[in-house]
Amino acid sequence: MKINIGIIGYGNLGKATEQIILSKHEYNLVAIFSRRVVKSKFNTLIESYENISFYKDKIDVMLLCGGSFDDLEKQTSDALLYFDCINTFDNHKKIPSELERLDKIAKISKHRLIMACGWDPGIFSNIRALMYSISQEKPSVFWGKGISMGHSDAIRKVKNVIDGVEFTIPNKNAIKQAKLGKCLVSENMHFRECFVVADKKYHNIVSEKIKNIPDYFKGQETSVEFVSHEELLKLKSKMSHKGEIISNFYNVDGSKNQLIFKLKTSSNPSLTAAILIAYINAIINLKTDKKVGAFSPLDIPTSYLFSKSFYKKLVEILC
Amino acid sequence: MKINIGIIGYGNLGKATEQIILSKHEYNLVAIFSRRVVKSKFNTLIESYENISFYKDKIDVMLLCGGSFDDLEKQTSDALLYFDCINTFDNHKKIPSELERLDKIAKISKHRLIMACGWDPGIFSNIRALMYSISQEKPSVFWGKGISMGHSDAIRKVKNVIDGVEFTIPNKNAIKQAKLGKCLVSENMHFRECFVVADKKYHNIVSEKIKNIPDYFKGQETSVEFVSHEELLKLKSKMSHKGEIISNFYNVDGSKNQLIFKLKTSSNPSLTAAILIAYINAIINLKTDKKVGAFSPLDIPTSYLFSKSFYKKLVEILC
Repeated sequence: MKINIGIIGYGNLGKATEQIILSKHEYNLVAIFSRRVVKSKFNTLIESYENISFYKDKIDVMLLCGGSFDDLEKQTSDALLYFDCINTFDNHKKIPSELERLDKIAKISKHRLIMACGWDPGIFSNIRALMYSISQEKPSVFWGKGISMGHSDAIRKVKNVIDGVEFTIPNKNAIKQAKLGKCLVSENMHFRECFVVADKKYHNIVSEKIKNIPDYFKGQETSVEFVSHEELLKLKSKMSHKGEIISNFYNVDGSKNQLIFKLKTSSNPSLTAAILIAYINAIINLKTDKKVGAFSPLDIPTSYLFSKSFYKKLVEILC
Repeated sequence: MKINIGIIGYGNLGKATEQIILSKHEYNLVAIFSRRVVKSKFNTLIESYENISFYKDKIDVMLLCGGSFDDLEKQTSDALLYFDCINTFDNHKKIPSELERLDKIAKISKHRLIMACGWDPGIFSNIRALMYSISQEKPSVFWGKGISMGHSDAIRKVKNVIDGVEFTIPNKNAIKQAKLGKCLVSENMHFRECFVVADKKYHNIVSEKIKNIPDYFKGQETSVEFVSHEELLKLKSKMSHKGEIISNFYNVDGSKNQLIFKLKTSSNPSLTAAILIAYINAIINLKTDKKVGAFSPLDIPTSYLFSKSFYKKLVEILC
């Protein structure tokens, strides 16, 4: 029996998610929900966001593909009343409080939510924690060069910004130092390069506002450059991204260890969509095990990412 | 309150485990159980293996540090009757059947076992499965150059072998091909170099026997060289090891991704001990959640590797 899927949000992530879901025989894509008037090039049914409640019994798992900056908080609360949900919420600092808030909603509505299922937060969080459990030390993390969807979304929410995009650039010297086992402070490890379209009279105020967005830019080395809409579209088409986690630690006997996880993608939205979709099985397994509430990737055993029927084969292939 | 720990087996892994346990204030090392007459340089109480049952109510978690080739199967069955257990069982192909067999014992004796908690199988299994869930493809895995404790143990169990050690050497060209996205067959990716001490009259038969040990050497490119005991001791002191998992995959839109996890250590036994010890919290969490049975690292959410009291801080630090 196919798993019925809904998608909320039809930006880059929503489109990438749609394409992967349509390519897999185990899913049936019921509808995409948007607040805008949009059209799917695959002829998927597009519904108004206002109508999600009408689909209460028609969708098994709702994939939330809105931006984290403000959309996801509201949309996840809304959707959790009617559906089991997965999102890619990426405001690292707000995850603990959102997890607590949404856990209450999920428990009342008897649904399940897995939040922050992208690559970071998401699989990077999981691997950082795994490394931490072994080393008892916080590993170093580097992102980029690449567009951060979350940071770009945050820029676009600033008043008088017509459009914008953010490139996260790691400090190459810091990567080198981390590999040599040096302890680093996260704030000096990256440079945040913002490109923005805005009317000239707002340039100063917009620049100040962006640099002071808490959790995203405040306290970090950030540049804001104003460009034409044409230039911005060209910049936005660069979908590639990279990331690296480095953990160096000594054992009590003086022996030395290094664990590294790294990732590169030519399309950040497509990779993020693939990860989001990998958690669908986890929702089904949580449901089978009669669990409700809000979970992070740290709470999900890897075996939950596979259908129960595949599990035995998986252990054989991978153990 | 401290967690009371026991260790079975006092080879390289047992000794490394003892040293880490003694360095952490949250554990109390009750005793080490051995079949041999040994002495701890840290003055840990050494007990005869035969006496494990007398410690039934004195040990919360028993860490099994025997070899996988035959010790662990029996010792894990024995210990599970009295204790919650963790082992580093490393015969990949036997994990599914051992998991099934030991799950029955654990359920009858109302204990918990987490098996195969080394780096591979162990954290590598977990990360391979995580990659597989996203890519739907089996990643390539390379080990070495380094001593495989499991393969060395298998050599030493061959009749007329006085001592022996195995170095796993990855095929460098295969690593290059894997990074370029080529699909590889595991059997041609490594060379297994064995050094053995045995009486000259047994050389031919021992060499044949080693090359035909199922699951460990059979079907793989293997060399067996006979050396003096002195030379062997020198070789055995090389404790460093490496490993790498490479996953290349395309999304349906044609975008390309590469995920890599790699590890290097100057002491394989110490790193393995650190991983084994990381799973102690998982046993405590399984117990708190009233779960019994046998589990693999795939069944353990990363959050279980931390004490419940640390969890909120963890989400804040790492998400």
